Amino acid sequence: MEAQPTSASPVSAGPLALTAGARTVLRPAAAARITGGLWEARRTANAHRSIPGGYDRLEEAGNLHNLRLAAGEADGEYAGDLPFMDSDVHKWLEAAAWQLGDPGTTAATSAELTGRIAELAGLLARAQQSDGYLQTHFQVRKPGVRFEELDWGHELYCAGHLIQAAVAHARTTGGSELLDVARRFADHIDERFGTGENRIDGICGHPEIETALVELYRCTGERRHLDRARWFVDRRGHGLLPEGRFGSRYWQDHVPVREADAVAGHSVRQLYLLAGVVDVYAETGDRTLLETAERLWEEMGATRTYLTGGVGSHHKDEAFGDPYELPPERAYTETCAAIASVMFGWRLLLATGRARYADHLERVLFNGFLSGVSLDGERYVYVNPLQVRDGHERDDGDHTAFRTRWFRCACCPPNVMRLLASLPHYMAAADGEGLVLHQYATGTYASDGIAVRVSTDYPWRGRVEVSITETAGGDRPLTLRVPHWARGRWSVSVAGEPLGPDEARDEDGWLRLRRRWQPGDTVVLDLDLAPRLTTPPERADAVRGCVAVERGPLVYCVEQVDQPAGTRLEDLRLDTGHALTSEERPGLLGGTVTVGATAHTAAPGSSTSWWPYGRYGESGERTGEAPGEPFEMTAVPYHLWAHREHGPMRVWIPVDGSRSDAVRD
Amino acid sequence: MEAQPTSASPVSAGPLALTAGARTVLRPAAAARITGGLWEARRTANAHRSIPGGYDRLEEAGNLHNLRLAAGEADGEYAGDLPFMDSDVHKWLEAAAWQLGDPGTTAATSAELTGRIAELAGLLARAQQSDGYLQTHFQVRKPGVRFEELDWGHELYCAGHLIQAAVAHARTTGGSELLDVARRFADHIDERFGTGENRIDGICGHPEIETALVELYRCTGERRHLDRARWFVDRRGHGLLPEGRFGSRYWQDHVPVREADAVAGHSVRQLYLLAGVVDVYAETGDRTLLETAERLWEEMGATRTYLTGGVGSHHKDEAFGDPYELPPERAYTETCAAIASVMFGWRLLLATGRARYADHLERVLFNGFLSGVSLDGERYVYVNPLQVRDGHERDDGDHTAFRTRWFRCACCPPNVMRLLASLPHYMAAADGEGLVLHQYATGTYASDGIAVRVSTDYPWRGRVEVSITETAGGDRPLTLRVPHWARGRWSVSVAGEPLGPDEARDEDGWLRLRRRWQPGDTVVLDLDLAPRLTTPPERADAVRGCVAVERGPLVYCVEQVDQPAGTRLEDLRLDTGHALTSEERPGLLGGTVTVGATAHTAAPGSSTSWWPYGRYGESGERTGEAPGEPFEMTAVPYHLWAHREHGPMRVWIPVDGSRSDAVRD
Repeated sequence: MEAQPTSASPVSAGPLALTAGARTVLRPAAAARITGGLWEARRTANAHRSIPGGYDRLEEAGNLHNLRLAAGEADGEYAGDLPFMDSDVHKWLEAAAWQLGDPGTTAATSAELTGRIAELAGLLARAQQSDGYLQTHFQVRKPGVRFEELDWGHELYCAGHLIQAAVAHARTTGGSELLDVARRFADHIDERFGTGENRIDGICGHPEIETALVELYRCTGERRHLDRARWFVDRRGHGLLPEGRFGSRYWQDHVPVREADAVAGHSVRQLYLLAGVVDVYAETGDRTLLETAERLWEEMGATRTYLTGGVGSHHKDEAFGDPYELPPERAYTETCAAIASVMFGWRLLLATGRARYADHLERVLFNGFLSGVSLDGERYVYVNPLQVRDGHERDDGDHTAFRTRWFRCACCPPNVMRLLASLPHYMAAADGEGLVLHQYATGTYASDGIAVRVSTDYPWRGRVEVSITETAGGDRPLTLRVPHWARGRWSVSVAGEPLGPDEARDEDGWLRLRRRWQPGDTVVLDLDLAPRLTTPPERADAVRGCVAVERGPLVYCVEQVDQPAGTRLEDLRLDTGHALTSEERPGLLGGTVTVGATAHTAAPGSSTSWWPYGRYGESGERTGEAPGEPFEMTAVPYHLWAHREHGPMRVWIPVDGSRSDAVRD
Repeated sequence: MEAQPTSASPVSAGPLALTAGARTVLRPAAAARITGGLWEARRTANAHRSIPGGYDRLEEAGNLHNLRLAAGEADGEYAGDLPFMDSDVHKWLEAAAWQLGDPGTTAATSAELTGRIAELAGLLARAQQSDGYLQTHFQVRKPGVRFEELDWGHELYCAGHLIQAAVAHARTTGGSELLDVARRFADHIDERFGTGENRIDGICGHPEIETALVELYRCTGERRHLDRARWFVDRRGHGLLPEGRFGSRYWQDHVPVREADAVAGHSVRQLYLLAGVVDVYAETGDRTLLETAERLWEEMGATRTYLTGGVGSHHKDEAFGDPYELPPERAYTETCAAIASVMFGWRLLLATGRARYADHLERVLFNGFLSGVSLDGERYVYVNPLQVRDGHERDDGDHTAFRTRWFRCACCPPNVMRLLASLPHYMAAADGEGLVLHQYATGTYASDGIAVRVSTDYPWRGRVEVSITETAGGDRPLTLRVPHWARGRWSVSVAGEPLGPDEARDEDGWLRLRRRWQPGDTVVLDLDLAPRLTTPPERADAVRGCVAVERGPLVYCVEQVDQPAGTRLEDLRLDTGHALTSEERPGLLGGTVTVGATAHTAAPGSSTSWWPYGRYGESGERTGEAPGEPFEMTAVPYHLWAHREHGPMRVWIPVDGSRSDAVRD
């Protein structure tokens, strides 16, 4: 089945179905399908391994058992020690629903997922209480307690994920079984919360319901859900939540949303909230919300984002750090935070039409997000550090540095599944006149009178070929994004003719080609993927004197396993005077491109002294070994780390000249 | 009252009273008293402000209420949400008891403390159960539950602190009220624990009882307490504790003690355990324990110790990081970990007689420990970072970067009190022939046939004058330590005559002066306190390209408040080509010495771009401001930080040449 080229309706069947009156510059493309390349391979693994396996994990971990308990269909104790066990089920349902919406899904998988969804929708309906309330933790463990522990209870958070699953299911199948459950819960919440008499003036410790309620409004047309979303946004930052263990910043209750200067607290909470903030803007036109969202996004990018696009420097409270506090080995950079960042950035892209949000989206997708799931779709990381040290201790409870099938707190795996299952919707947009290709993946995309086929080996190769397959006639723009890392290093041709500087000019990142397009027309964008060295921000102390290797949109890392025997990553120094090389390696890690660089190992200083600090500039010889001979260092894409061994890894590599001449005591 | 110069008994009245058969190279000096200088001022604040105030805090926080509940003398709920609330009382009692042992304590303070101790000893006795058990958390909240939650229950930990308080009280006053309570609990523990039938084969999640039981053995002569301490050491690392949230390393149960290669897990737990390990060695002669302790100490110093001597890189689990994982802004470096490190290092110093342990002791005492309490003794920090950023967020629950009167988890304040109250004992030792001065503070010290008076303005000035006040006759060594930072930069004279190189030679840090000493003889040690720049270990990525300022034993820091207006610490760069200066500032921070250096501010790079990473070596101009003019940067001793404002601070300062030339996108 082909994508429909000239859909009469501007409404996408994806995660964001803006209303006709929404105040956004762009909209998701009406049709988008990924049919080849990196994302297709990952999405196939997601469909065939992650999602089916996820159902089994939910059974094993007791999430389904909890629902059966609430439905009166099982005996025993609530499984798991977290109150939001239900949300894993909801996120899995959302992933399965998006997968059903993909025309490439095999019949067998469709049948299996359809059956599972029906089964779980029935179970949820039976577990739901007569007034619409549904959260097994409170129903089973604390019957009668409701919305009294808003700080850690996660009831509205779970409701939000239920709503998102239901909307996805309704959009891709037209079915109402899940939507009925979600609407009953949403109606109940709307009746209970508010500033009036006998209402709960409270917010959830974990934002999520805001974005979900806006989507429920978009799906059902019921305005009260949009109003309630806005109300939840408005009530945040007024101290309705207790201080808690980590302070009110943790759940963004320290300042009213519109007054915030910077992202703060728990990264996923902050970014889900901001996704909702943009959604409320889009449907209400409240520009103070959009301004807040743009301000916080910019502050986050400029001061608190790792090179991989990952965010969150603190393990303790899974929170943003201070500005420029970006320690690579203590990067928490939770997979869920990358996903939340994609959701937030995508909404800003649509709201504003600014290419920088698409640049950011690409960076997060290919690096900080993609590292969160293994090539085979079977294993995940929760934490995505930019360095793993020689001697790293593994059992600190974060599962840093090795891939795991499931987690005690299993928020990440089903979150990965739902993003991959809905990913085509994140690739292209429309501006009312024509199609906007802001991400590059082989597939078919259509909206606003243009349908195209994209063929590319991106991100491995820089050539992106776009063929027009259908048009609705007339002069229309086809807009391509020139990634920010490629500015000045690209060319474009139409029908084999290179465009001159007048036409091939990117305006703030967009290459806007207006033509009377005909089927068969071909546009080729060539991006220079020569590997490059990247420097950190001057204030990012933790990686001072280091560079990173990047190639196209990919951040690279060095893993111990690829280096000559005896090379210790701790002592690796990159020689910047030599050119970088790249090599296509079809047999490595599912097919990848490695980057080579000249490096040597530094004298590590004495390792026998008890005191490793030295006196600056003192004459005398350094103890320890002499620097080693230059050798070829091999880097692999960061998202492929930890696939071969649990060894040391680093993204940032010191360069010579970064140390002081010193002797040791 | 003067110290007794030639005590017949080698037994110190301090925290370590080695038995006559103990296998140590040194012993604590028989008498030690600090009468002037920095430590005297801090100890006066401790006696007059911290300790009396601490009693009030224990009342306010409910620790005493909990004891009254257990004694049946109050109604209500258990106060506080931690099971080890009792231990704060015990540590306070230990501090008060040591204070009573100081001849400089005023009569009024002595009377007040004596009364408080009597009151609390009575309360503890009434709260104690008939079989000796005593922990209010379990008695009040979980009656009947005992030693069943060894992972988090802290029962043996509290017992340990009770024992240490009781021993201190018995030693300084001869009183038995507290000792009777402690012995009943220790006897109960000895009866309940063990490998035999009907015994509990278990260990406490928080080591502490090991060192306490050895001291109880030393105090009472009851061998079974030493045996039980050894048994607790031996049983550790065999998986008796569950994995827990943070893995078994957290409580050092991942490997048998003697097989450990490196310190691991929660820093305070690890170091209390190792203090006990050395204690068990000292009284049993089991050299495998001493070898383990030395090996782990060396590994800790070489790879996991901050310049301040602080340890613990992880906030999340208050744990050691990986080797060389020493991020300055995320240094957890809990005050209690510094104290535990002092206790451990002091024991190794005595056990081995190696000067490096005294060097380490000095570093921790003057820096990582002393920063934990304010000059006036009224406020504390729990976390001692080496950097506080511009824009630091304060409410993450750690109270980083500002001084606080008390904490929800109030382990640090009474721990500071007990160390300061017993500090004179940590200053001097004896080697069987004569006196060993391994720390320098104005006061009187005596042991093994030599009594001296030390006069010095150390650490502000480098001159240490030692006058012999009494001797027992004969040839005796007076041993001084040449600090490791002063090697090659010192001189010594006896009776005004400089010693030549033959005699003034430090052997592994010790300057051993053997003479037929006469009262009136004077030895003057001159240490060069010229300020110096220090470089980090080559593998410590987080501070690459930086230097720190040190002067004598003191680590320095720069605080925002001392720099020219408009200077942003984030952008400070030290010019290494200029000499450092120092200035005595009697009016600043209780009297201190500041260090001046030439610095400038670096171009911070663009702060308007959303993406702060740049392309290495690309031609073009850097955005942002030009580097500023050189100015005089002022550094203050690290231990005095956060006394004037809650502003930015840093120990490590980048030097020029540490960055790559780069442009920003």
